[in-house]
Amino acid sequence: MASPKTIALSGGVGGAKLALGLSKVLDPAELLIVANTGDDFEHLGLHISPDLDTVMYTLAGLSNSEVGWGLEGETWAFLEALERLGSETWFRLGDRDLATHVERTRRLAAGDGLGTVTRELCSNLGIRHPIVPMTDDRVRTIVHTDQGALDFQHYFVRDQCRPSVTAFEFAGIDSASPTSAFRAALEESARVVLCPSNPFVSVDPILGLEGVEEALRRDAVPVVAVSPIVGGEALKGPAAKMMREFDLPSTALEVARHYKERGLLDGFVLDTIDENQAPEVEALGLQVIVTNTVMHDLDDRIRLAKVSLALAEEISVSQ
Amino acid sequence: MASPKTIALSGGVGGAKLALGLSKVLDPAELLIVANTGDDFEHLGLHISPDLDTVMYTLAGLSNSEVGWGLEGETWAFLEALERLGSETWFRLGDRDLATHVERTRRLAAGDGLGTVTRELCSNLGIRHPIVPMTDDRVRTIVHTDQGALDFQHYFVRDQCRPSVTAFEFAGIDSASPTSAFRAALEESARVVLCPSNPFVSVDPILGLEGVEEALRRDAVPVVAVSPIVGGEALKGPAAKMMREFDLPSTALEVARHYKERGLLDGFVLDTIDENQAPEVEALGLQVIVTNTVMHDLDDRIRLAKVSLALAEEISVSQ
Repeated sequence: MASPKTIALSGGVGGAKLALGLSKVLDPAELLIVANTGDDFEHLGLHISPDLDTVMYTLAGLSNSEVGWGLEGETWAFLEALERLGSETWFRLGDRDLATHVERTRRLAAGDGLGTVTRELCSNLGIRHPIVPMTDDRVRTIVHTDQGALDFQHYFVRDQCRPSVTAFEFAGIDSASPTSAFRAALEESARVVLCPSNPFVSVDPILGLEGVEEALRRDAVPVVAVSPIVGGEALKGPAAKMMREFDLPSTALEVARHYKERGLLDGFVLDTIDENQAPEVEALGLQVIVTNTVMHDLDDRIRLAKVSLALAEEISVSQ
Repeated sequence: MASPKTIALSGGVGGAKLALGLSKVLDPAELLIVANTGDDFEHLGLHISPDLDTVMYTLAGLSNSEVGWGLEGETWAFLEALERLGSETWFRLGDRDLATHVERTRRLAAGDGLGTVTRELCSNLGIRHPIVPMTDDRVRTIVHTDQGALDFQHYFVRDQCRPSVTAFEFAGIDSASPTSAFRAALEESARVVLCPSNPFVSVDPILGLEGVEEALRRDAVPVVAVSPIVGGEALKGPAAKMMREFDLPSTALEVARHYKERGLLDGFVLDTIDENQAPEVEALGLQVIVTNTVMHDLDDRIRLAKVSLALAEEISVSQ
């Protein structure tokens, strides 16, 4: 009998690293990677899906290993020419990356869904494991801040996360449905891995889609998370800063609580540096594994993937 | 008193060369360059204006001097990535060139007219002489061929002008108006230079706009053309091939007749290699200058510009 399918819910850089690790230990039929599209945006007339692209490029072996997003060996002739024309250049569109956005935008305009377009992009990039957008519908993360409501990429890239966050809004979420592959996988007795992505703006939009939380609360679906907060800081991005702005401790424990208080979590992977939080995380009713979660190289990604899967298996057996 | 304004009607490569020459001998206030937009098209979701761009890049000193279109030192990372994604790559979109199309498309989608967008593109490229699209309205050249009706760029670039042409159609021309600067210049006692561009698909769309032929027939508006056919062949493009397909002699004389039979021409600049056609061109009722019309370098462009202007001046005085 085939193992239950693993569904990895991922944002950008950190999530993509674990997704890559999972793809190295699971067959394509055993894994579904679901990427956040709440931070998608329209820019210069192009539909840009930053998290989807980061996951795609990472699994295709094309990602820039230094910064984690964009393409290795990228060039910037387009952006330089665009600057000369007086247009907006705060979002760094590389020459090769641009092909993805132009092709996606063209196909969406022709009436294809984002899931269909993503499948073909992945196929052309030689990716064997399925990567799907969380939804074909339009969901847009709005960051409410002390400087007003900002589109996510304006907050994240243009304003470099400087504004202080007061609330998040996922515009369109109420009428958005999970993509069919995501929904189908949830209906099986899947295992779910919440990748080390920002809980508020990378994972929560996915959890907010119709039926997702209900599915994750089922006993038959063990859910494990890998903490994106290590030693009180996010390895990448504004998660810790956001927690402080919400007057929350910026700790791994708090991330565990964030999911567990909604009944969405069964197991938690904690970094060794945060080992002292293990008792409190366990006290939330979670199974905990303490290990090194910082993924420097492919071996780290594979090892962390195996640890996460082992934890999900353990929960599965004990239930 | 200022000289009457010179209006240059131009297609792509050949026309842009003469337009550059004119810009070197006339002040910005004395020249208006009107570019054909009948070969504009929407490709990959982008609004592309090949003739406008060739004229702009040429006047900005940015054009590829070897092929005459596109940008010097262009790179092709976008197109290579697009090819990998399985998309159409028959239209060669360079990385820098792409910035023009993306910015133009963005501004058009925001509601600006093509004339306004062109003015700002030119300004950002440091171009001092005014370049305007023939119209803000949508006109699309359709080439009827033995292989059916083809969008111009499909005929010209994708199919490399291989199909045999039976007729041309300028879809939208009946409801298209000249851009305001073009119309205003026509209403003055301008001089008009028909650049050495394809008479059928580069110049005729401009002439077909409301009021243009009427303005050119006025005695106060001397019109001179530089033959795009030299020694029975077009220096660039399919003009001579088209003439043969229409069972016309592919001669400079025939180009002169093409314009003169509609009462649109007063003077003709003939290449020395075609000197033997001068009596017949004169017999059409045209003033003729025979000179070297092949423009290898900037000096050639300037000299031919001066010759054309002198011919227009001569006609002006004699009328």
